[in-house]
Amino acid sequence: MTKQVVTPWEVSGSIDYNKLIKEFGVSPLKELPEIFNKNILFRRKIIFAHRDIQRILEAVKNKKPFVMMTGLMPTGKFHIGHMILAQQMVFYQKLGARVYIAVADLEAYNARGQSLEDSKKIAEDYILSYASLGLDLKKADIYFQSNRSSDAKKSNAYYQLQNLLARYATFNEFKAVYGDITPGKMLSALLQASDMLHPQLKEFESQAPVIIPVGIDQDAHLRLARDISQRIKSPRFIQLSSTYHLFAPGLGGGKMSASDPNSFIALTDTPKEVEKKINKYAFSGGQPTIEEHRKLGGNPNIDVSFQYLKMFFESDDKKLAQIEKDYRSGKMLTGELKKYTIEKINDFLKEFQKKRELAKKDVEKFIYKEK
Amino acid sequence: MTKQVVTPWEVSGSIDYNKLIKEFGVSPLKELPEIFNKNILFRRKIIFAHRDIQRILEAVKNKKPFVMMTGLMPTGKFHIGHMILAQQMVFYQKLGARVYIAVADLEAYNARGQSLEDSKKIAEDYILSYASLGLDLKKADIYFQSNRSSDAKKSNAYYQLQNLLARYATFNEFKAVYGDITPGKMLSALLQASDMLHPQLKEFESQAPVIIPVGIDQDAHLRLARDISQRIKSPRFIQLSSTYHLFAPGLGGGKMSASDPNSFIALTDTPKEVEKKINKYAFSGGQPTIEEHRKLGGNPNIDVSFQYLKMFFESDDKKLAQIEKDYRSGKMLTGELKKYTIEKINDFLKEFQKKRELAKKDVEKFIYKEK
Repeated sequence: MTKQVVTPWEVSGSIDYNKLIKEFGVSPLKELPEIFNKNILFRRKIIFAHRDIQRILEAVKNKKPFVMMTGLMPTGKFHIGHMILAQQMVFYQKLGARVYIAVADLEAYNARGQSLEDSKKIAEDYILSYASLGLDLKKADIYFQSNRSSDAKKSNAYYQLQNLLARYATFNEFKAVYGDITPGKMLSALLQASDMLHPQLKEFESQAPVIIPVGIDQDAHLRLARDISQRIKSPRFIQLSSTYHLFAPGLGGGKMSASDPNSFIALTDTPKEVEKKINKYAFSGGQPTIEEHRKLGGNPNIDVSFQYLKMFFESDDKKLAQIEKDYRSGKMLTGELKKYTIEKINDFLKEFQKKRELAKKDVEKFIYKEK
Repeated sequence: MTKQVVTPWEVSGSIDYNKLIKEFGVSPLKELPEIFNKNILFRRKIIFAHRDIQRILEAVKNKKPFVMMTGLMPTGKFHIGHMILAQQMVFYQKLGARVYIAVADLEAYNARGQSLEDSKKIAEDYILSYASLGLDLKKADIYFQSNRSSDAKKSNAYYQLQNLLARYATFNEFKAVYGDITPGKMLSALLQASDMLHPQLKEFESQAPVIIPVGIDQDAHLRLARDISQRIKSPRFIQLSSTYHLFAPGLGGGKMSASDPNSFIALTDTPKEVEKKINKYAFSGGQPTIEEHRKLGGNPNIDVSFQYLKMFFESDDKKLAQIEKDYRSGKMLTGELKKYTIEKINDFLKEFQKKRELAKKDVEKFIYKEK
């Protein structure tokens, strides 16, 4: 067996989920309703842990209102790594959730020095991608942190909450989560806490429970919001629920980097680009020579192409199991696995890019009318 | 001569304005247009220094728009000490300024733990008093920090500015102004900076110059907002203007304290209460016995009754000079000075309280309709 890698952004190695869960102090996901397991992210344990998910399951069961809250940091191109969250937006919206999406433009301004105008342009690509992946924008509440709502009552309540929360926070908490802390980062942290909590205010969904899906390394942010919310007595908040997922590995096997286009597949890449990126950059679990590969077999656990099939592009479990078996035995060569992956990605992107063209007009209308 | 006292809240001692001005790094007020000198606060140097007032004088001269910005901390009863600012509101509004008044309810929440509901109740008394002193509420923009506007564009712009300013501030600056700094105090400081600067945003008065009258000890807050505003490039702000005034002394000669009703005259005090407070608590510049007083004379510079006449209740310069002369010579006794002061205060309060009753209905309409 290969060495196990448990950093949250690597899916390589045979993952010891129990160890990961213990390390982050979250609970394993088990006994989910059938509808969750129809989604490959849940079925294949890409989403593998939670805090307080039971009240979301109850809301689903009793057809009560609930909220799915998430955010986007507007930097770089929308790539397949972003699909994990996007697919959860679509999933929860279809389950009946009201979906809230915060564009963290004030955080990008204060933590990265990015202008609000640039954030707006980049966010447009993200929102367009959500729509193309099946999100119904009209039913979602997508907003910019800098410009919460066209309804003054909602805007006032959202920013008021950011200010009220400050009374219940300490500098040490921020330091624990953000390391070196500046006034800008501190305001961003409190605004992020308001992002997570404000859907429960009476001006929004009024005490509906909120589920926040995050990458496992983001739990500290969630803990901060959970802790602060329990100290503020009025309005009283229902404790936030969350799920935790692994990251999709970058092409080289490490983390995807917005500044390195060869570390990811963008959803606007051409078939040629995809072919080149997978063939040239996708880290392989295969052996150095065909002879050795036939003899020793490949390792799908560390093979990036295989991981992409598993996370996104091969929904058929039997087919995936067959590929895994054949690759591990040496029957399937790395070239064959890559070729299949390229085909699956390009089939997906062709469909996606068609939808993206169609969605463009709607998104422009949506962004420029609403904001 | 008595010992000179230069703390900003004491008017006692013969004040060396030049020393005070040097100490705080502000400029002396001189060569004001005639209309300013019709106001006793300017004429008698209660308002004695400024920063960058020239662009306000230019706006007045050229009949260009300008803003007078101020705030109120909703604690305790409205008392005569608050009249210095209130009278400036009325003065600048009549000069053509758009008057902005921030009710610092979020600051009261974060710095003093006071609920928003309590702040609202107390603020009502203040606003009622402003109306009774001649402020036209319909033409002023009076708002709660927690609830900026019923116009979403305005609210978003105001809170956005609070968040954007964070990028240009440092912890050390806050410490210099506020001493021990908490997340709550830091957010309050940034919101206060937004209070001062936001009238210049395009959603409000769009780059009109802003005059902010403050007590001399408040200059640190103003310097903070001035400094930060010059670092933020977009939107570019016109540098804030300010004037500096002395405090009205408390009855005992020190500072007025909201928690000690015997340290101030509330504008809702009855004639009996005024009589008792002045007779019993107003610090006297007189001598221990009538004989000594006749011989040595009194000291109007440290006599609280005389200071109240000078700041608020005796608008006739000749009459005031006569009282000062007679008291200093010993011709006028402390009892006589107090009796005259009580009469003047009660005449004023009678008129004020009549107006207050009439204004009540308007204020309720104003506060509960708008917010």
